Amino acid sequence: GGVTGRLITFEVGEGAVKSTQLLRRADALGARWVAVVSTREPGGAPGAEFLRGVILGGEHGFAPLTEMLLHFAARAEHVERTIGPALRAGSWVLCDRFYDSTEAYQVHGQGADAAAFSVLKGLVGVRPDLTLVLDVSERVAAAREKARGRAPDRYDRLGLGFHARVAEGFRRIAASEPARCVLVDADRDEVVVASEILQIVCERYDLPV
Amino acid sequence: GGVTGRLITFEVGEGAVKSTQLLRRADALGARWVAVVSTREPGGAPGAEFLRGVILGGEHGFAPLTEMLLHFAARAEHVERTIGPALRAGSWVLCDRFYDSTEAYQVHGQGADAAAFSVLKGLVGVRPDLTLVLDVSERVAAAREKARGRAPDRYDRLGLGFHARVAEGFRRIAASEPARCVLVDADRDEVVVASEILQIVCERYDLPV
Repeated sequence: GGVTGRLITFEVGEGAVKSTQLLRRADALGARWVAVVSTREPGGAPGAEFLRGVILGGEHGFAPLTEMLLHFAARAEHVERTIGPALRAGSWVLCDRFYDSTEAYQVHGQGADAAAFSVLKGLVGVRPDLTLVLDVSERVAAAREKARGRAPDRYDRLGLGFHARVAEGFRRIAASEPARCVLVDADRDEVVVASEILQIVCERYDLPV
Repeated sequence: GGVTGRLITFEVGEGAVKSTQLLRRADALGARWVAVVSTREPGGAPGAEFLRGVILGGEHGFAPLTEMLLHFAARAEHVERTIGPALRAGSWVLCDRFYDSTEAYQVHGQGADAAAFSVLKGLVGVRPDLTLVLDVSERVAAAREKARGRAPDRYDRLGLGFHARVAEGFRRIAASEPARCVLVDADRDEVVVASEILQIVCERYDLPV
């Protein structure tokens, strides 16, 4: 009893096992929780999904601060329309990417201003209770990207140096907030990683594994 | 000699004589200044003009904070691509609407968070040197809107109560920053208003009228 809404975020660099697949597994295990809402960023609400297309399409060549503001605009819509109502209803929200991705991609990866990021983060109305940072080595990331063979999006096209900076950014975020973030070795098989994630969540919230 | 780039902004509620017309007159008079760049918000750069369409189209029903962040995203692009380079080149930039419009429309008009606005305003890399706030009484604004008969945009559709809050918001902004803002009675004829604006600018910068 007494379980209230929780926001659990999944942060992944390139080459991580598709976090949506991990979320689907978590969904299947949702019976042990009150109610689970799976969502993603950028997106997770109609207006935010529209902005996802604008950002990831990359056709407008936005400046780094513009792109960061667009991510926070999409996030504001997502929090207002989806995450906030779900948390108030007592649901557990599993979110594929959240503001740590903006810090890793825009600040560490693209050189957007770190102080501006902090200020914008302060405007977001919710905080994750727990963040699982899926860490993939450069070697494994490159091999998985090659095997995947999907059409590259805005960030896929930015190259290996960019992705190394993003991965290092995620490691720094995890190290700077150890109470909230858990770094998960995601070089391993998807089933092993999903199982470890479940174990981390159950231990954290005193739920049966 | 010694004249460097200046940012002069024009802020207008509904029913003001079209500020673009005033700007065109100012352009015609630009010979007395170093170089004049006329621009507008939301917009003023290709990516920002795209975002203008998204915001003013109003089809996504964005939450107030989302809409405010989109305005600042468009502004970041405008400052990065158009205003910043023009000022660095020593031009005088005449901008039709700037962040005071966001405060009047989103904060005073739509109830977006004032503290969030202040934080976002702090991220904008430039400050207007001079802001001309064109003030129109409710009576004249209603009459002009009726006479105009153009297709209503996102903000036109929000009604008279909204526009009264916006107009009051502009008056408060002008009163709170008297060194930067000049309130201009824009109930008068366009030619008279344009002439007064020119006089204000010339006196402020010690230019021949």
